[in-house]
Amino acid sequence: MEKKQFVEALVDGDLLDDLFLVKSVRRAETRAGKPYLLLTLADRSGEISGPAWDNAEALEPICVTGAVVRVRGQAQTYNNKLQVQIRDVQAVDDTAWQPETFVATSARSQDDMRTELDRLITSVRTPYLRALLRHIFDGGATGPLFQTAPAAKGIHHAYLGGLLEHSLSMARVAALLADHYRGIDRDLLVTGALLHDIGKTEELLNVTGVIEYTDVGRLKGHLVIGCEMIGRAARGIDGFPDEVLTHLQHLVLSHHGRLEFGSPVLPMTAEALLLSFIDDLDAKMNLVEQLSRKVKTDMPQWSDYQRSLERFLLLRPLSGDSEKAAIGEEQDIPVKQRTLF
Amino acid sequence: MEKKQFVEALVDGDLLDDLFLVKSVRRAETRAGKPYLLLTLADRSGEISGPAWDNAEALEPICVTGAVVRVRGQAQTYNNKLQVQIRDVQAVDDTAWQPETFVATSARSQDDMRTELDRLITSVRTPYLRALLRHIFDGGATGPLFQTAPAAKGIHHAYLGGLLEHSLSMARVAALLADHYRGIDRDLLVTGALLHDIGKTEELLNVTGVIEYTDVGRLKGHLVIGCEMIGRAARGIDGFPDEVLTHLQHLVLSHHGRLEFGSPVLPMTAEALLLSFIDDLDAKMNLVEQLSRKVKTDMPQWSDYQRSLERFLLLRPLSGDSEKAAIGEEQDIPVKQRTLF
Amino acid sequence: MEKKQFVEALVDGDLLDDLFLVKSVRRAETRAGKPYLLLTLADRSGEISGPAWDNAEALEPICVTGAVVRVRGQAQTYNNKLQVQIRDVQAVDDTAWQPETFVATSARSQDDMRTELDRLITSVRTPYLRALLRHIFDGGATGPLFQTAPAAKGIHHAYLGGLLEHSLSMARVAALLADHYRGIDRDLLVTGALLHDIGKTEELLNVTGVIEYTDVGRLKGHLVIGCEMIGRAARGIDGFPDEVLTHLQHLVLSHHGRLEFGSPVLPMTAEALLLSFIDDLDAKMNLVEQLSRKVKTDMPQWSDYQRSLERFLLLRPLSGDSEKAAIGEEQDIPVKQRTLF
Amino acid sequence: MEKKQFVEALVDGDLLDDLFLVKSVRRAETRAGKPYLLLTLADRSGEISGPAWDNAEALEPICVTGAVVRVRGQAQTYNNKLQVQIRDVQAVDDTAWQPETFVATSARSQDDMRTELDRLITSVRTPYLRALLRHIFDGGATGPLFQTAPAAKGIHHAYLGGLLEHSLSMARVAALLADHYRGIDRDLLVTGALLHDIGKTEELLNVTGVIEYTDVGRLKGHLVIGCEMIGRAARGIDGFPDEVLTHLQHLVLSHHGRLEFGSPVLPMTAEALLLSFIDDLDAKMNLVEQLSRKVKTDMPQWSDYQRSLERFLLLRPLSGDSEKAAIGEEQDIPVKQRTLF
Amino acid sequence: MEKKQFVEALVDGDLLDDLFLVKSVRRAETRAGKPYLLLTLADRSGEISGPAWDNAEALEPICVTGAVVRVRGQAQTYNNKLQVQIRDVQAVDDTAWQPETFVATSARSQDDMRTELDRLITSVRTPYLRALLRHIFDGGATGPLFQTAPAAKGIHHAYLGGLLEHSLSMARVAALLADHYRGIDRDLLVTGALLHDIGKTEELLNVTGVIEYTDVGRLKGHLVIGCEMIGRAARGIDGFPDEVLTHLQHLVLSHHGRLEFGSPVLPMTAEALLLSFIDDLDAKMNLVEQLSRKVKTDMPQWSDYQRSLERFLLLRPLSGDSEKAAIGEEQDIPVKQRTLF
Amino acid sequence: MEKKQFVEALVDGDLLDDLFLVKSVRRAETRAGKPYLLLTLADRSGEISGPAWDNAEALEPICVTGAVVRVRGQAQTYNNKLQVQIRDVQAVDDTAWQPETFVATSARSQDDMRTELDRLITSVRTPYLRALLRHIFDGGATGPLFQTAPAAKGIHHAYLGGLLEHSLSMARVAALLADHYRGIDRDLLVTGALLHDIGKTEELLNVTGVIEYTDVGRLKGHLVIGCEMIGRAARGIDGFPDEVLTHLQHLVLSHHGRLEFGSPVLPMTAEALLLSFIDDLDAKMNLVEQLSRKVKTDMPQWSDYQRSLERFLLLRPLSGDSEKAAIGEEQDIPVKQRTLF
Repeated sequence: MEKKQFVEALVDGDLLDDLFLVKSVRRAETRAGKPYLLLTLADRSGEISGPAWDNAEALEPICVTGAVVRVRGQAQTYNNKLQVQIRDVQAVDDTAWQPETFVATSARSQDDMRTELDRLITSVRTPYLRALLRHIFDGGATGPLFQTAPAAKGIHHAYLGGLLEHSLSMARVAALLADHYRGIDRDLLVTGALLHDIGKTEELLNVTGVIEYTDVGRLKGHLVIGCEMIGRAARGIDGFPDEVLTHLQHLVLSHHGRLEFGSPVLPMTAEALLLSFIDDLDAKMNLVEQLSRKVKTDMPQWSDYQRSLERFLLLRPLSGDSEKAAIGEEQDIPVKQRTLF
Repeated sequence: MEKKQFVEALVDGDLLDDLFLVKSVRRAETRAGKPYLLLTLADRSGEISGPAWDNAEALEPICVTGAVVRVRGQAQTYNNKLQVQIRDVQAVDDTAWQPETFVATSARSQDDMRTELDRLITSVRTPYLRALLRHIFDGGATGPLFQTAPAAKGIHHAYLGGLLEHSLSMARVAALLADHYRGIDRDLLVTGALLHDIGKTEELLNVTGVIEYTDVGRLKGHLVIGCEMIGRAARGIDGFPDEVLTHLQHLVLSHHGRLEFGSPVLPMTAEALLLSFIDDLDAKMNLVEQLSRKVKTDMPQWSDYQRSLERFLLLRPLSGDSEKAAIGEEQDIPVKQRTLF
Repeated sequence: MEKKQFVEALVDGDLLDDLFLVKSVRRAETRAGKPYLLLTLADRSGEISGPAWDNAEALEPICVTGAVVRVRGQAQTYNNKLQVQIRDVQAVDDTAWQPETFVATSARSQDDMRTELDRLITSVRTPYLRALLRHIFDGGATGPLFQTAPAAKGIHHAYLGGLLEHSLSMARVAALLADHYRGIDRDLLVTGALLHDIGKTEELLNVTGVIEYTDVGRLKGHLVIGCEMIGRAARGIDGFPDEVLTHLQHLVLSHHGRLEFGSPVLPMTAEALLLSFIDDLDAKMNLVEQLSRKVKTDMPQWSDYQRSLERFLLLRPLSGDSEKAAIGEEQDIPVKQRTLF
Repeated sequence: MEKKQFVEALVDGDLLDDLFLVKSVRRAETRAGKPYLLLTLADRSGEISGPAWDNAEALEPICVTGAVVRVRGQAQTYNNKLQVQIRDVQAVDDTAWQPETFVATSARSQDDMRTELDRLITSVRTPYLRALLRHIFDGGATGPLFQTAPAAKGIHHAYLGGLLEHSLSMARVAALLADHYRGIDRDLLVTGALLHDIGKTEELLNVTGVIEYTDVGRLKGHLVIGCEMIGRAARGIDGFPDEVLTHLQHLVLSHHGRLEFGSPVLPMTAEALLLSFIDDLDAKMNLVEQLSRKVKTDMPQWSDYQRSLERFLLLRPLSGDSEKAAIGEEQDIPVKQRTLF
Repeated sequence: MEKKQFVEALVDGDLLDDLFLVKSVRRAETRAGKPYLLLTLADRSGEISGPAWDNAEALEPICVTGAVVRVRGQAQTYNNKLQVQIRDVQAVDDTAWQPETFVATSARSQDDMRTELDRLITSVRTPYLRALLRHIFDGGATGPLFQTAPAAKGIHHAYLGGLLEHSLSMARVAALLADHYRGIDRDLLVTGALLHDIGKTEELLNVTGVIEYTDVGRLKGHLVIGCEMIGRAARGIDGFPDEVLTHLQHLVLSHHGRLEFGSPVLPMTAEALLLSFIDDLDAKMNLVEQLSRKVKTDMPQWSDYQRSLERFLLLRPLSGDSEKAAIGEEQDIPVKQRTLF
Repeated sequence: MEKKQFVEALVDGDLLDDLFLVKSVRRAETRAGKPYLLLTLADRSGEISGPAWDNAEALEPICVTGAVVRVRGQAQTYNNKLQVQIRDVQAVDDTAWQPETFVATSARSQDDMRTELDRLITSVRTPYLRALLRHIFDGGATGPLFQTAPAAKGIHHAYLGGLLEHSLSMARVAALLADHYRGIDRDLLVTGALLHDIGKTEELLNVTGVIEYTDVGRLKGHLVIGCEMIGRAARGIDGFPDEVLTHLQHLVLSHHGRLEFGSPVLPMTAEALLLSFIDDLDAKMNLVEQLSRKVKTDMPQWSDYQRSLERFLLLRPLSGDSEKAAIGEEQDIPVKQRTLF
């Protein structure tokens, strides 16, 4: 069953019959004492709430947070806000739907990104660093988690695959700047770009579209967790040099750039300075890109006030056809870069 | 007369007979009432001070700040510091010396940089922006000033030609990142990179190696001065679009990135965000490079405490042979970039 | 038709038939699919919203943002808030109403303020500065804009004529303090006071009571815009001395007093220090005065929490009859002061 | 004996025979074990140090910190600094000298300032406030201390009489602004201006030109001390209204304007806001005036970097003849102002 | 009449007939012009609002803010929030209820705390300090106020008796740390702990569960008020040493630890440093304890975001039986401490 | 050979013949080209520098940084500073001296502190935590390093044994406060107190009295290093619970209390809040104690300006006889505490 009705497009009066993700559910009672359910439904385009007045007992075991269900009902404006009056909910088979239909997902495909990741790892010539990357991304549980994780709970790259997309973008910028500036250890910098947020795979928990912090994530933070993960991985590689490990861990620990942003040490090497810049830049440019996608006019348009940046932004519309290939088809890779990867 | 004795290499007891720049001069008197001169001499490697006990009257008209003179005397340690006891000073012909012998100068030649500047200007396809660049760099007094100006009084690119070197490096990074991120107006960004510090040509006064602020420089600052210079230049170009001018002036005004760093407005466009990052990054990487040049050992070495960064830096030595060509030989320019410039 | 019903005085159940300004309008639909309009109406005393359930098609072309219309309906409390149920809207002739009835306006008349402005300009003895003031205020489009502009979008002097009222108040304080302190160039300071916010005439756009930022206003800010306006005006005056222009522009650029408040340079002259103090003081005293006007009791009363000042204020009621003459004729000098000094 | 030789004017080789204040004295020994004295001598123009090699035993009881003595010796340059070789020191009669010869003193005479203080007190019409001022300034020990105290250890009004001079200047500005702005209680504000720093008479200890903090001054601060002094004085006045006392104490406690400047409460009344502005303004303008006095050229001149203001200042020379009368007799009101308003 | 129905436990549909505190009351009118009352009712467990549609005229004199009344009605969910539909309100006799039933109160009894206070006072061996404590706590109006005052309007110890509970806890920690660290004047520190917030008895006004700032409280702050109260008390004790008073006042004035937290002076003695630490610590630990009491599960649980601490807290449940006796039974007092108290 | 001449007590003219630590050595040359040595000598009381004019070649291999040597010479004042003219230097046997004679050392003996550490470890009843403490302190290289390490390079506990002294003091305060406040896990808190700075054993390198940062110390910081050390130790203990490890690591990572002080996470548990307070408090109280030891008078005395605290401190002299036993004799341990340890 292909989903056709998306939350974003619903208007007052629409009759609904389609699949939705159950984001949350709460049982309540009418004044007469009759139980009913208050549901929040979602798909990748947004969320909508509303009551299911009847059959609460029967519906409750179906309406589980994180489940995808078939909903019948009608959209209605109530208190200036669009609600859904739910008439029926049915369980559906897990094979009947694609996760990316229901939760926001990177515009780049996982295969595409996985391919680029492999090419970047191959481009790392320093044997120990390449071995470490292979160990972490191919070895155990971290690799798969890394591919689907979001980069953050809010603000930038806050969608499935966002962490990988962000890390790849940073690694490509890292390679460009390592070529531009003198005395940069390109392999160390690219490795740092790929691993800088690796701790987020243990810091954040992703239950079908609901991102939460783990206890250890809050109590230690993804910088320290990542530093430890890399330390453990390096100990699993025979002869991994202590000094290289220290430098790589320094990249991870210092990449927030300032103590008040949660880095326990400031960037003190050329690569650490570069990496903290690239991380900040890539996050901000992704935010601008996400906001620009929403501009529907042909003209530049002012954004809402961006609390995270403490300013308004003047956004230019992103026209679909001018899309830059995120990684570049084979034939487009610049000569210099082709030898690199 | 080719200079052979440089301040950096002087040791206690050395007999001096060579050319030096007069950095400052002060007349004093011995207890017995005899006048003498206290001179500070300099060349591109450093500074040294000392007294000329005799012939003060005769020497005074020769020892003018900013003049290059022939000095005879002897280096002596006094109070744990190397001084020079000056025995004689003679005027020399202005054609007898090269400025770069006496003041620190960019490692890149002016011709080299001028060539790159031309190529970057040519790479700007938007007619009005290219015309503006030509107008400013080729038209009047600004172009030549821009080529020899330092980028700052201290910290980064603080040597002759530093402003141009810094602007070119930023423009190249700008071109790279404009290709990497979506929705960036490359021509606007590259033009902004080349012009962002243009106001420094009026903010700073360079009198043979002594960099000073002008009154207007202190009272208005180079951001506003640059904004006005660009405004006047644009009015000299028939039909220059108001909107383009506003965006370009916004790049100049906002490039310090934060109000407390002297930008009267925050970066509010994608290009302005990028430019403020690139400026900050390029300045810091230049500082790291300058410090790394001083590392004489083969091993990484901790720098002195860097007050501007509030930290120590672990510096890797820059080996001479691994020099990256600053602009890249013709054959090395990546395909994609080649079409750009 | 003289307006008699003001928003501030409406109570639940009132029947309405009077003129109101359309502040905003939005078309919506009932569940049954019938279109209706949601209007926000305003006059100088406040705003009120409500639906016009019938004749949406016919009313829509009449209910244009910024238009003054005749509204019939009834005030009703809904969800603890007073609304208006709109029964009919009619277009009215533009000559039928006075703007000051519908938008908040300075308590001082425009004629009164214009007269004072002329006297202050005449009091400037330095020929170039007086010529500049005449050029800007009498010459072109700026003068009229200046007279009706608000001084800000929120907080202080946020009403029509507020910019002129604020500038005049500052100029009078400037004249007082220039007499009190030694070594102050009174003419420069008074000129700076009158011109310090001149850039706001291009930064803010005033469409019948709706104040908005222009693009150029946000991207450059009124300090830089004002600096450029003065520069252009000075170039239109034969022989205007560069140094005087620089000092005047410094006053404009530095008048916010601190970099983090958007001044690209700090006040560095005695006049600039004074002007930044006077601006801050006058803005705060106007805020206190606006708040004090609302105190209806005889006793001092605590204000709401003032976010802009991060504190509560203890306000004394302003009794109407104790109004100080804003400019003061000779015979109006208070006895107190005359005997004192 | 009238002092003729001032420190400021001494040059290498001068023979000295004049009165100086002993600022500090330290006993030392030559390698041969012979005791000698190291003295720092001062007058209102500056300080100079040097050794008295002979007769240490006999000189020591004469060379007491704070004493004025007759010194014979010679000025000599040593290590690039002017010293004095002291040959003899003699005690002098306390009646033989004027304090203002030896310590920096307000340019205004004490009589002049005392007269103005009386007129200002008389101008306060509110009986309780006038009584309080009389009580404090005429009653006990505070009045005389107040007249000679400096306003601060460094920066502004840091000379004898500076506290009174500063308080009077503030009171006059207070009167001007109380007339300018609506709803200001002029008497409260003027009283606050005169009393705002009264706690400094207990915070600072002045021993012939050496200003020190008292223990209670450091442990409580002059704001709280002043608040208590006023509280005690008010309790000595029958029927002094609690509310007036609270408001006056609020002026004293809040006059530093911000918590981080040591005010335990922020200014929350119109008068408190005004007073904190006036204090800050008057201090800064005095600093500018002190610096301007040192400008010896006809042209504006940049000051040294002012750490307290975090900037350089462009100073205009103060020509002696343009002195404004500090208080202004009736006949002294400038023509300009009279015609203007 | 013992109260049985508490706000916290009400559910939709409950019939009410019990005593409640009137927290606020507002008169409104239906569209038909009929007056009705909107009441907010409270007890120590929480607050609930709702309309009394009938008999507004008769009920209004009964429903006075701060009164305890008997309410009949029904709880109903409206707009997702529980309301109460009030059918009847009756006045009740003041003797019919206990304040602690209606306002949040310290878990420790007043007798218990009064006893501990006496023992702590007795433990102070320095005669003047003990006399001062007796004077303040036993002498006049302050003692009783101190016993029932809250420690703050929000955040920590914000319940009746909270000020005393907080002061006692601090005094006990003070005694422990005075024993641990060298060179601490234990009596001064314990006295400071007991008196540090004494000014709150004049800063805050407590009208049956509604805590408000007094005018003098806002205009002077409890630090200065407390300093003055102690000063007055000390003057009432013959021969109270000035130096001891200064030190004690310093403790009170500096106990917020930083200027930006409202202390006019920083802690400059060992005791002042300790006291500011203990105050901050005790406040934060009380907040954690209050939040932990609400954890209903057996597992540690994350709190809501704590704005005052800028973080989430991981809270462990406080099991009732593990309650530490707040003061310790006689037999549990450590030997060392027993001699102390 | 027992050392009798300490740097602190030397005066001009003293003849020296005693042992000193070579803190640094530099070879220089006279104008005549003769080599000589510039030495800095030290003992636990201070440092003194001076030249050894003769026999540079022979002395150089003896005068090694970190060596203790026998020095003969004479103290002389030069440029107002005491120097030593070195006549001869001789090597001495390593067994001939005690380290604590030459470097500042904790006032508590190592045996004493080791005994207390054992008792504190024994007092930890939670098996895994006690096992972890034994593992770390008794197992390998960390224990011995921990006993002699300083707590910091400057400011507080900056002497040999300072780290252990500081950790023990914190653990005792931790035990006291765990008893005072409800719901605290005493064993976790005491363990955290003992281990919070364990990373300093790898962060700092101690070469006979010269404390330096290691590369890994600077690049990762002692918080992260300590977190990893504890992680590795816990993995060496069979069945060590993950949750306990996370909580303990959280204590270590958050103990600086604020992000800007280098903690990557804020304290989020009751124990973490307490520990960060105790650490800050103990460091400050140690600083006060160190300063108080230097007060030689009977009266309280103001310290120099303490840059780390941004204030002056009023110090009371510490009389030797009132010394509190740092750990308490057996018979003095309070009953409650006796059961604890």
